[in-house]
Amino acid sequence: MSLSVPQTHPIAPSPVVAIIGATGAVGQAFLDCLATRRFPLSRLRLLASPRSAGTALPFGNSRITVETLAEDSFAGVDIALFSAGGDISRRYAPMAVAAGAVVIDNSSAFRMDPDVPLVIPEINAKALLDHRGVIANPNCAAVVALMAAAPVHRINRIRRITLATYQAASGAGAAAMAELEASTRAHLAGEIYTPQVLPHPYAFNLFSHNTAIDPATGYNDEETKLMREIPKILGDDAVRVSATCVRVPVMRAHAVALTLECEDPITPDAVRRLLAAAPGVRLVDDAARNHFPMPVEASGRDEVLVGRIRTDRSDPTGRSIALFAAGDQLLKGAALNAVQIAELLKAPRPPERG
Amino acid sequence: MSLSVPQTHPIAPSPVVAIIGATGAVGQAFLDCLATRRFPLSRLRLLASPRSAGTALPFGNSRITVETLAEDSFAGVDIALFSAGGDISRRYAPMAVAAGAVVIDNSSAFRMDPDVPLVIPEINAKALLDHRGVIANPNCAAVVALMAAAPVHRINRIRRITLATYQAASGAGAAAMAELEASTRAHLAGEIYTPQVLPHPYAFNLFSHNTAIDPATGYNDEETKLMREIPKILGDDAVRVSATCVRVPVMRAHAVALTLECEDPITPDAVRRLLAAAPGVRLVDDAARNHFPMPVEASGRDEVLVGRIRTDRSDPTGRSIALFAAGDQLLKGAALNAVQIAELLKAPRPPERG
Repeated sequence: MSLSVPQTHPIAPSPVVAIIGATGAVGQAFLDCLATRRFPLSRLRLLASPRSAGTALPFGNSRITVETLAEDSFAGVDIALFSAGGDISRRYAPMAVAAGAVVIDNSSAFRMDPDVPLVIPEINAKALLDHRGVIANPNCAAVVALMAAAPVHRINRIRRITLATYQAASGAGAAAMAELEASTRAHLAGEIYTPQVLPHPYAFNLFSHNTAIDPATGYNDEETKLMREIPKILGDDAVRVSATCVRVPVMRAHAVALTLECEDPITPDAVRRLLAAAPGVRLVDDAARNHFPMPVEASGRDEVLVGRIRTDRSDPTGRSIALFAAGDQLLKGAALNAVQIAELLKAPRPPERG
Repeated sequence: MSLSVPQTHPIAPSPVVAIIGATGAVGQAFLDCLATRRFPLSRLRLLASPRSAGTALPFGNSRITVETLAEDSFAGVDIALFSAGGDISRRYAPMAVAAGAVVIDNSSAFRMDPDVPLVIPEINAKALLDHRGVIANPNCAAVVALMAAAPVHRINRIRRITLATYQAASGAGAAAMAELEASTRAHLAGEIYTPQVLPHPYAFNLFSHNTAIDPATGYNDEETKLMREIPKILGDDAVRVSATCVRVPVMRAHAVALTLECEDPITPDAVRRLLAAAPGVRLVDDAARNHFPMPVEASGRDEVLVGRIRTDRSDPTGRSIALFAAGDQLLKGAALNAVQIAELLKAPRPPERG
């Protein structure tokens, strides 16, 4: 990460970090990212529901005991990483801010609040300059789509994005990942499995994203998030988005098929060059070997994989590009992006000496 | 099927039918469809490679022994249902026609031949009037997409289709279905599985369709088929199509996310009414229960399921509709469609008496 952001809310060089929702799938990824990236924290606190309190989770070479999340949990916390759902964020994030913490929220609670920056560091780190204590982490599928689209938008404004997602179990949490595994085992054993977490059978099946449909538009909540968050992150309300969000029986990386309609004609080679140079993106576009972005290769990786770059032949003007991306929903789609934001928030380190 | 097609090549009321590729996944579905629909044949012959010859396959209450496909296999055959790949079709279909049979070919060998009708009976049965002995069955994903799109095109011409597929193992044959199962079992047991049929790991993974990429366009063969076959079946070369074809870890029904851009504005309610009345389509569009087309419900069904019907909000002109469809790749996407064609080819029955 080569971005450097001026600080309006300076944070100590070795902050106290709290993870809210530490026992969830994203919570676990927060622990992994903080450890792997050697985030220079002075103390890590893990907060969760009373059900999880007392559990000790490994962090680096130590174990940290989960505490019960409460109104007085935030004294002394510098950075609070929230991933316990929108209701918890709406209730506790203001308390964390009042106690002096900066909140980086992985829920959708504050994303469209005009006072809350919605940030992907590689794309709009500057938005961090204006925060008032809460910074929102975008929807995971929006992150994967934008890591592919934003480098194009920067040189040739995107007017319209059509996208279809292939979303993994991880997006619905650890319980959904367990259900995918358990229901697949049952299916292979010829046994009946009654879905408990997701609304439909998941073994060797797929279904429209399990969020409510807005009767006024026909889009589900996940699609609506993508359609609203993408223009906000690009800082361009003129970008029109239509999304179809589908849950597929994949464990933890999301994939997205995208069509980008630009203002001016654009070639696949130009897009390939842009993406090859884009931070956080790995070009996987080997037509000869039929090797393109796949969830199994995106899982556990920091980069979003992008490929299948080609001119959309249904647009005779040459302004439309089709591509395919895959990214780890728990890493760049959630925890990694939040930790990258936290890294930018820290007080600038002294320049390195050569 | 209420369509009635005048016959230029009349076929006996109880024809001799041959299945070429009887032991494959589509071959097995041919047997099932002929039995279930009580296709009035006088004799059924099963032809396959020498490796499969001698196998006895159940048909209704009897068993039929598979014969080796050879140049002289077609004497006395009235209808030859081919599903043994393009090379076999290119070699043996002309021999079948020379021997007096009508060929219904499930491969892509002849689909774009201007002398060969490419037919979905509910959409363009009239194209059967012009056949010269060979009739092509369309690509399976094209069938699923068109069952949803054609009723719209009939009342408001479609100018552009953007589609992303979610294609099942069945489209790559019985061996791919077995590989999906075996590799998933291995994954769940923590064992290494080396892909043998498909080029990439399949357990809880997805990948760009396993056909070659055209270096000139960047589209793979499957996408190119969709983009060429859809305008031919609609009988309208002005329909522009862009496809992204993806193989997902689903056993046997394909799904498709579609955006249809029409000539004139169109409402979701109008599309819903059209599809509710369309033969071969089942509307599954229950927003309140979040119940939409799913492979697990499309599998084993004759109808293509269509839902998620909504105005594409990225097109401010109101001329674009988004929807989602799922259909059994082996039935309407292959064997059922071919058997429906065979039913239309038979000499017209006398009108039913009331």
